[in-house]
Amino acid sequence: MTRQELLAQIAKKKSMLCVGLDTDIERIPSHLLKLEDPVFEFNKAIIDATHPFTVAYKPNIAFYEAMGLSGWKSLQKTLQYLQTNYPEVFTIADAKRGDIGNTATRYAKAFFEELGCDSITVAPYMGADSVKPFLAFENKWSILLALTSNPGGKDFQTLELQNGGQLFEEVLRKSAQWGTENNLMFVVGATRADYFKKIRDIVPNHFLLVPGVGAQGGSLEEVLTHGIINDPALLINSSRGIIYADSSELFAVRAAKEAESLAMQMAKFL
Amino acid sequence: MTRQELLAQIAKKKSMLCVGLDTDIERIPSHLLKLEDPVFEFNKAIIDATHPFTVAYKPNIAFYEAMGLSGWKSLQKTLQYLQTNYPEVFTIADAKRGDIGNTATRYAKAFFEELGCDSITVAPYMGADSVKPFLAFENKWSILLALTSNPGGKDFQTLELQNGGQLFEEVLRKSAQWGTENNLMFVVGATRADYFKKIRDIVPNHFLLVPGVGAQGGSLEEVLTHGIINDPALLINSSRGIIYADSSELFAVRAAKEAESLAMQMAKFL
Repeated sequence: MTRQELLAQIAKKKSMLCVGLDTDIERIPSHLLKLEDPVFEFNKAIIDATHPFTVAYKPNIAFYEAMGLSGWKSLQKTLQYLQTNYPEVFTIADAKRGDIGNTATRYAKAFFEELGCDSITVAPYMGADSVKPFLAFENKWSILLALTSNPGGKDFQTLELQNGGQLFEEVLRKSAQWGTENNLMFVVGATRADYFKKIRDIVPNHFLLVPGVGAQGGSLEEVLTHGIINDPALLINSSRGIIYADSSELFAVRAAKEAESLAMQMAKFL
Repeated sequence: MTRQELLAQIAKKKSMLCVGLDTDIERIPSHLLKLEDPVFEFNKAIIDATHPFTVAYKPNIAFYEAMGLSGWKSLQKTLQYLQTNYPEVFTIADAKRGDIGNTATRYAKAFFEELGCDSITVAPYMGADSVKPFLAFENKWSILLALTSNPGGKDFQTLELQNGGQLFEEVLRKSAQWGTENNLMFVVGATRADYFKKIRDIVPNHFLLVPGVGAQGGSLEEVLTHGIINDPALLINSSRGIIYADSSELFAVRAAKEAESLAMQMAKFL
């Protein structure tokens, strides 16, 4: 998917919402468990209910991998369902991969070709040759971890460098030269809205994927205020706050309400 | 597997060799392609031939994931084969995962429980809460990326910090407090033998997983000279140099010869 297509979808739906499909067999409504593939059925219901308010879906790959073969099948079916029924939607494999050369290319093929995802999250620690192989795929995106919202994010990401600035700034600065605004995004934790100015000084136009709104406690208002310079180049994620809003048979209806409520807050900034 | 069991195996086999199972369907001998699961058959033959000289096997997860469901099956069969036939051997899921909290726990379950691996490689960028969940599993190991041997390794890992030292040193220093010599290892690229002194000053006793000997051009002699302080706490990996030493029907015999040759060089230091 191109940047223009993604921006067009944001304009049309008046939303920058990304729904995280962190689907956990132990947390999905019990009435689904008697079906053949409860994880897929859960995702399908969530997608059908939330798609009018949602521009991107982000399956967290760990949740599927933890279930072995059956998890991989549920993931594959979920992505096929999205691509067939809602081809305008942007898909993110939240895999946080980071490996070099031909290994990175293998991962890129697995997620871009085998699963047909539009994008994948990538870790920066191994440097240019762990990121560039992902950037080589046409109309596919790499979403590089820059500043994450977890407590451990400050263990290394905010270390002050001898030549000035913090590590995450150097990650932004250096990696922005490896890709373009058309194939590279960054993960920026929403609980650090105070850092948005620094980030937008370095990458004013790149899309930012912002997790941590909702369950992790980030302020949506602050993200929207500081995160948009020109285009509304933000994908704002909520996972548990939407998909586990309710555990009854009405879970999908409640999920849609939560998604709509977030989208309405976003619409004011569009 | 415990540190003592791993050291006992190293003493018994007089080897610190780890064989990387970077198995690529496009590179395996053509006579295997007519079998039902060529990737597994290739791995099985390599393992049967090389195990007398090998203390650890390291499947590179990307190669299996790139093949989707069939790749995951081949991986599962390979690990089951190892656990059943060579239970003394240490297994490493080279997955370079890095994610937080419950997501990290999912990955840990996938690799430690679902696949039964002894260890997994982990990326440090997201900090403590992306590493500690892996360390919570008894008799399982986390192998943290510290200094990698690829050219991009110097993009961030060797940045000088304001408070002194380089980023990889801070990664070693901080993470050594999260785990112990009994559940935490580090990846250290062999092409940087000049860094071994710095590393052993910080973590004199932790096991180091050293990739990059052989095809990537690291010097085995230097690694052995600088990498051992007390116990021979090294796992020295070779992948392509062993498994693709020959592409004829004699591939496994040639692989065993390459493995034996590396092990003999190691034996001098044991």
